[in-house]
Amino acid sequence: MSSGSSFRLHSRLLVDPDVTERFAGPAHLQALLDVEAALATAEATVGVIPAQSVGPIEAAARAELYDVPEIAREAANDGNVVIPLVRHLTAAVATRDPDAARYVHWGATSQDILDTALVLQLRSTVPTVAHHLRRATRAAREQAHRHADATMAGRTWLQQATPITFGLKAAGWADALHRTSGWLDTMLQGASVLQFGGAAGTLASLGSHGLEVADALAVQLGLTVPPIPWHTHRDRLAQLGCALGVAMGTVGKIGRDISLLAQTEVGEVTELSGPSRGGSSTMPHKRNPVSASVALAAAGRTPGLVATLLGAMLQEHERGVGGWQVEWDTLPDLVQVSAGGARAIADALEGLTVHPDRMGSNLDASGGVTTAESVAMALAESVGKHDAHDIVATACRQAQEEGLTVAEALAKHSTITRHLDPATIADRLSPAGYLGVTHEFIARVLSRVDRDG
Amino acid sequence: MSSGSSFRLHSRLLVDPDVTERFAGPAHLQALLDVEAALATAEATVGVIPAQSVGPIEAAARAELYDVPEIAREAANDGNVVIPLVRHLTAAVATRDPDAARYVHWGATSQDILDTALVLQLRSTVPTVAHHLRRATRAAREQAHRHADATMAGRTWLQQATPITFGLKAAGWADALHRTSGWLDTMLQGASVLQFGGAAGTLASLGSHGLEVADALAVQLGLTVPPIPWHTHRDRLAQLGCALGVAMGTVGKIGRDISLLAQTEVGEVTELSGPSRGGSSTMPHKRNPVSASVALAAAGRTPGLVATLLGAMLQEHERGVGGWQVEWDTLPDLVQVSAGGARAIADALEGLTVHPDRMGSNLDASGGVTTAESVAMALAESVGKHDAHDIVATACRQAQEEGLTVAEALAKHSTITRHLDPATIADRLSPAGYLGVTHEFIARVLSRVDRDG
Amino acid sequence: MSSGSSFRLHSRLLVDPDVTERFAGPAHLQALLDVEAALATAEATVGVIPAQSVGPIEAAARAELYDVPEIAREAANDGNVVIPLVRHLTAAVATRDPDAARYVHWGATSQDILDTALVLQLRSTVPTVAHHLRRATRAAREQAHRHADATMAGRTWLQQATPITFGLKAAGWADALHRTSGWLDTMLQGASVLQFGGAAGTLASLGSHGLEVADALAVQLGLTVPPIPWHTHRDRLAQLGCALGVAMGTVGKIGRDISLLAQTEVGEVTELSGPSRGGSSTMPHKRNPVSASVALAAAGRTPGLVATLLGAMLQEHERGVGGWQVEWDTLPDLVQVSAGGARAIADALEGLTVHPDRMGSNLDASGGVTTAESVAMALAESVGKHDAHDIVATACRQAQEEGLTVAEALAKHSTITRHLDPATIADRLSPAGYLGVTHEFIARVLSRVDRDG
Amino acid sequence: MSSGSSFRLHSRLLVDPDVTERFAGPAHLQALLDVEAALATAEATVGVIPAQSVGPIEAAARAELYDVPEIAREAANDGNVVIPLVRHLTAAVATRDPDAARYVHWGATSQDILDTALVLQLRSTVPTVAHHLRRATRAAREQAHRHADATMAGRTWLQQATPITFGLKAAGWADALHRTSGWLDTMLQGASVLQFGGAAGTLASLGSHGLEVADALAVQLGLTVPPIPWHTHRDRLAQLGCALGVAMGTVGKIGRDISLLAQTEVGEVTELSGPSRGGSSTMPHKRNPVSASVALAAAGRTPGLVATLLGAMLQEHERGVGGWQVEWDTLPDLVQVSAGGARAIADALEGLTVHPDRMGSNLDASGGVTTAESVAMALAESVGKHDAHDIVATACRQAQEEGLTVAEALAKHSTITRHLDPATIADRLSPAGYLGVTHEFIARVLSRVDRDG
Repeated sequence: MSSGSSFRLHSRLLVDPDVTERFAGPAHLQALLDVEAALATAEATVGVIPAQSVGPIEAAARAELYDVPEIAREAANDGNVVIPLVRHLTAAVATRDPDAARYVHWGATSQDILDTALVLQLRSTVPTVAHHLRRATRAAREQAHRHADATMAGRTWLQQATPITFGLKAAGWADALHRTSGWLDTMLQGASVLQFGGAAGTLASLGSHGLEVADALAVQLGLTVPPIPWHTHRDRLAQLGCALGVAMGTVGKIGRDISLLAQTEVGEVTELSGPSRGGSSTMPHKRNPVSASVALAAAGRTPGLVATLLGAMLQEHERGVGGWQVEWDTLPDLVQVSAGGARAIADALEGLTVHPDRMGSNLDASGGVTTAESVAMALAESVGKHDAHDIVATACRQAQEEGLTVAEALAKHSTITRHLDPATIADRLSPAGYLGVTHEFIARVLSRVDRDG
Repeated sequence: MSSGSSFRLHSRLLVDPDVTERFAGPAHLQALLDVEAALATAEATVGVIPAQSVGPIEAAARAELYDVPEIAREAANDGNVVIPLVRHLTAAVATRDPDAARYVHWGATSQDILDTALVLQLRSTVPTVAHHLRRATRAAREQAHRHADATMAGRTWLQQATPITFGLKAAGWADALHRTSGWLDTMLQGASVLQFGGAAGTLASLGSHGLEVADALAVQLGLTVPPIPWHTHRDRLAQLGCALGVAMGTVGKIGRDISLLAQTEVGEVTELSGPSRGGSSTMPHKRNPVSASVALAAAGRTPGLVATLLGAMLQEHERGVGGWQVEWDTLPDLVQVSAGGARAIADALEGLTVHPDRMGSNLDASGGVTTAESVAMALAESVGKHDAHDIVATACRQAQEEGLTVAEALAKHSTITRHLDPATIADRLSPAGYLGVTHEFIARVLSRVDRDG
Repeated sequence: MSSGSSFRLHSRLLVDPDVTERFAGPAHLQALLDVEAALATAEATVGVIPAQSVGPIEAAARAELYDVPEIAREAANDGNVVIPLVRHLTAAVATRDPDAARYVHWGATSQDILDTALVLQLRSTVPTVAHHLRRATRAAREQAHRHADATMAGRTWLQQATPITFGLKAAGWADALHRTSGWLDTMLQGASVLQFGGAAGTLASLGSHGLEVADALAVQLGLTVPPIPWHTHRDRLAQLGCALGVAMGTVGKIGRDISLLAQTEVGEVTELSGPSRGGSSTMPHKRNPVSASVALAAAGRTPGLVATLLGAMLQEHERGVGGWQVEWDTLPDLVQVSAGGARAIADALEGLTVHPDRMGSNLDASGGVTTAESVAMALAESVGKHDAHDIVATACRQAQEEGLTVAEALAKHSTITRHLDPATIADRLSPAGYLGVTHEFIARVLSRVDRDG
Repeated sequence: MSSGSSFRLHSRLLVDPDVTERFAGPAHLQALLDVEAALATAEATVGVIPAQSVGPIEAAARAELYDVPEIAREAANDGNVVIPLVRHLTAAVATRDPDAARYVHWGATSQDILDTALVLQLRSTVPTVAHHLRRATRAAREQAHRHADATMAGRTWLQQATPITFGLKAAGWADALHRTSGWLDTMLQGASVLQFGGAAGTLASLGSHGLEVADALAVQLGLTVPPIPWHTHRDRLAQLGCALGVAMGTVGKIGRDISLLAQTEVGEVTELSGPSRGGSSTMPHKRNPVSASVALAAAGRTPGLVATLLGAMLQEHERGVGGWQVEWDTLPDLVQVSAGGARAIADALEGLTVHPDRMGSNLDASGGVTTAESVAMALAESVGKHDAHDIVATACRQAQEEGLTVAEALAKHSTITRHLDPATIADRLSPAGYLGVTHEFIARVLSRVDRDG
């Protein structure tokens, strides 16, 4: 069996292949080696190990020197990958400088290396998710700006409600996307913390030099020093995982909206189709919303992954048995899937074709019911909200049952004609005239998104 | 069927009954009525409705005037509870002042009322969770301070590792608890946002007065005005739900530690037992860790609830069908369970009896293996980390197999005796002498916790 | 605080109130007392306790004799509700017959009583879920039969694909619903197992009479005797929970289909609307798919609850600490929510109005693209599948871009006209002529559903 | 980027690499090609396509002929992998026989191929999970038999309760494992169903030959023909996923028990350690329960994966957008992780060293409290269950507080000495004499496990 055997056929569609690479064998090994090398440097700086041992350790800390599948195989026996890695690294250093080999992994425990390398991996991958979310925010912002006046049906419970504009809908998307990348930055910052505690979190193997080495190591790696090691306190990672989960909830909401707007019977937006993009193996006419489906798939997978991370927080004493191991694949999966979803929604929003004419005809087709509320509000001034609501509701039902326009149905009710003249009713029934503060809401979102870049 | 029929027998043990009350029928109805009353006041302030309609609406906005089960029954037909509520409220206002009745619920949509009331309910319940987390933080901080020197086995993979002190363990708890209540405050603040958009989020029914009314309403209720309504963008609620989930992860981790420390064979802590607290219906000698079990149960239930909230974020267009309804019970459940878990861990930590003598005897019973690393580190100075590790590991196995102390087994290895004299070995094997920077870590946590209050 | 305080305002809409009642305080207490009474009877039968103690115990085993909130309050201290219950029951028996009081709860442990009562509660509630699933199956079967010929667009990726009939869609629903109630019966049967093991699962407190008492108790309660007590082996409950989860997946799928078909722009079905059923508090014209939303909400909540049950299976040794407690509210929640979802989908299917005319006009509106595959298949006979697909796809795109019907667009391609004459093309483009074995599939489902009743 | 880039370093430890291989690119491609080849054969049998087209299609249906990463890359554009696969397969067949190339993928839709190939993959991987579960069952059965008399503390709430034997505990494990592989077989059988419906589930592209082709194809592949295609009815897959989830719950429960029994302070079992198996990178004395940790990790990951599958069941109309895509990686992940967990628990149980002496000394160390119930039961004959329980509980507390044995403490209570003589008390306090029907329970499990093989 080769090391490539876990590559899945849909992996380039559903997840982000660049991010996948960062969590795969060679890159993971390199991240672990980076921590081991930085540790040697830090310890030499502080004087805990000889300065001349750093060079040979750094020289051997290159992933391409090692047989990745072999290390994976040994890890299955050892219980974690750092144990065979230290063995091989020590041997490789020894061929260069036997004295230096003594100082490999000095004072650290496996989890120090694994966790700190994980933090490095997160720092090199989560920004990809944030990057795609920002692309999506900008694209939604542009759509909000461009289609601020494209009147369409607002829809509640999947029924046409009162009118909105496509700009308002896109502004809602932009606002939520904007918030979500902000949280992601904050939580990544919060999780960018060194793990360095030694066997049980006391740094006893470094005597009185523990804090000095920790500080130097954190400087080397550009990480924050926590007040205390966090081997079994995983809340920072869980918060970051949650921010990814929430981001995918927003991504999925937009994906669902797009897939609904792209329905044959609605037809208000189309996803960009390259040659054969979103085609069918059997139906020649199909143009499927592929990017929306990927966004929806990401949103479908992340809640379970987040729950898994939260459930894995119950790690025993100074190092967990089971819970820690749960994280090993779950956190990479979560980042990969999230990057795939964020990329897909950015693609969808950047390539989205909007059909304002179809928006208008869909509104027309419902015969004016979407602005019935407006008539009811006008009538309410005279007869009160409750009665006005009932009278107009009756007229709407009549319109639907008898195939009338709402205007025609309203004209049959004396309570209405007594209080409202035909011009007022016509005016009230115009969608473009019943948009309230739509443009103010759009402007507020644009201003906020633009302000924060 | 009475309205009380959903009360569960374990509800006072597992969830927080005071929080439960806040989400139950009467309190929920009152929160909804509070929003309706504030809306009338805000609209009168802005001049959208007559000032004299406010009094009668406020007078009728008291939950005790309504038949809660009847409103629940009608909601089953109407699809949400605000529809029957508005009907009953309008009728009740009408008996006082028919003119005022016209202005009930003016310009709002059901979801405006439901969501804003939900925010009010969260603002009145989530602080209870935070309060218990702060109690727990203080109690853990006290334990860390008091038992800073109580040497015990650090445990990794549920095996004795190198020594720590109970103070270090409790400091880890305090640090994580402290962080978790901070996030909860931040996320509650972020979710304390007015919902007010009318039927499809344009406030069209208020003409040009929408923003003014929104501002006035937010002032009335002490909430933030968002840039745009968020009927189908639920990320703020989801982030808050996540913060509860992460908090329970920490609560559960501590609960697990306590339950493990309280095992008959470990016996290093005991939960406070009142008369019969944690007794058994059949075994006269039992003292069960009841509070830890409640903490663990909360941590077991919250991941699924958080995942449910994340999955429910995919709400369609301007109002969801299904996803929104998922939240209705899930968010209250999450807050209730979290309050129960937070209260339990606070109770456990405040009442925890610590047995330093047993900690010492458990360390002794393992015959010195916990400090073997220290000998290996000393030996590594001469023979390198790798060989030192192997030699000492062999000695440890010998000790276990032949029933020797580790000191005795080490003395049999010439490589060891050649490089280390007996006094050094004895010194190295003393747990209290192998604590590294334990006290510095404790001090850093205490200082951080104390600084933030 | 009253015992009624946990009643939620949406509880009659979202969950099943009759099922809720079965898990609420009084009914739960009665189930526990039923087990205690049956235990006394069984032990008297076997001769382990005096026959005359049975009467007084049975007489006291009536829930209405006890203060439910008080027992709940005491349970919060004792750690489970059986401990205070046994105390109160013993006292109540003692007032009748002090000798009999000695034999209350004889030889049992709390979990024996709690688990067996839970099984009784499941046996009295899960059939309600199955009942609603069978109602739904019958209703879907009727729709499949009645609308077997109602040609409509099949839809894939929310795009019109090739034609189907509404009968085929409803047959798919009926088939899945049918399967799901079958699994539910099987899993309920598998979980209808006595729990009786005493303190640690050995029945030691009954000396050599343990198995005899267990057999007699199982007969009393109509339950199966397991090979060994299952205090910490919860797989049977988990399987039952999974069957509920899978059922809700099917319920949610149908709810989603209905909500999509009921969209204003699709309009192919309408949920039954009573007076004001599914109305809006603000929009007079709205008729919301309320039952579908409840079905979707149930499907949104159950995956998290199932995951919670699975996660809670890791119960320690002979009685869990945490995991067991997780189940106490989760399993009742799962059954309640499932009953609500099953009831809703049954209501939706029974009341569904189908609009075959609208199905036809939606097919027409897409201008023949749904049967383009048929032309491609005919053409493939001459030019191969691959080329045929490409040519027809091009024609479809042309039709959409140039506003032609597909027939018109096809006529422009000489490859097509060379191989297919206009009559063949027209015939191929007729939806009703391109239904394949639709009717055979419907017939097979009907036959299977009818066979199993 | 190479195709191997998704290989993770811990993949040989945590998941089953052989199963991983079955879901990876080349094997997946082969499964898809197997279905395409079988389709051609079936259609030739029925006479839908020419017999001479089968050979060239079969010849081209070998995965090694294709560039797997290239197909994955194209799938990212096409939306699923079958679209590029059909393109490449058609081209490959065309180089052999242009006529045969016309009949590639005849009448099928992408999902027919993907779903049927998935079923084939499940059929080739789920038995691996079942195989390991049966290994584990046999190993637990052997332990139950061998250690039927090894008296140890039963433990509830992680406290010593009354005595059991290790055989009883292992019999509980065997019983649950046995049940779980049975369900897995049943559910795999239920899911071994052909998917074949064409574009929208009517098989219209095959005219009147649809059912015949389906039957012939099912025979080719050894699958069941369902009454109706199940493109968007995923309950059979979900049930199978649930059976895996439940199996992992049992696997995790046993993993937890083992990890608890292997604690330094308990020491009643040891996992097999090969050279360095379960060692530590820093602590020379450590022997970590590696297999138990893998079992626990599997149990920690599966609930979220199962919930994800259940949530993905809500697939729209005749082909889902999002939900279907969720399954693509989730189901393979679930099988892989489950195989890893099942293998680990089988390894753990087969290699488990049991320490009956330590079991005895742990019972002794608790000073007789585990059999206090026995004294209480004897005393209850005279003074009733309630009073007996209270008196003995008081004596147990005294024993713990004053450092007495329970026998000594009991002797101080006149109510006890009045009713029970010292010999009876001593007899009652013997653990081996207080095992009830332990051996009968073990025998029943052994007989059931042996009967079913």
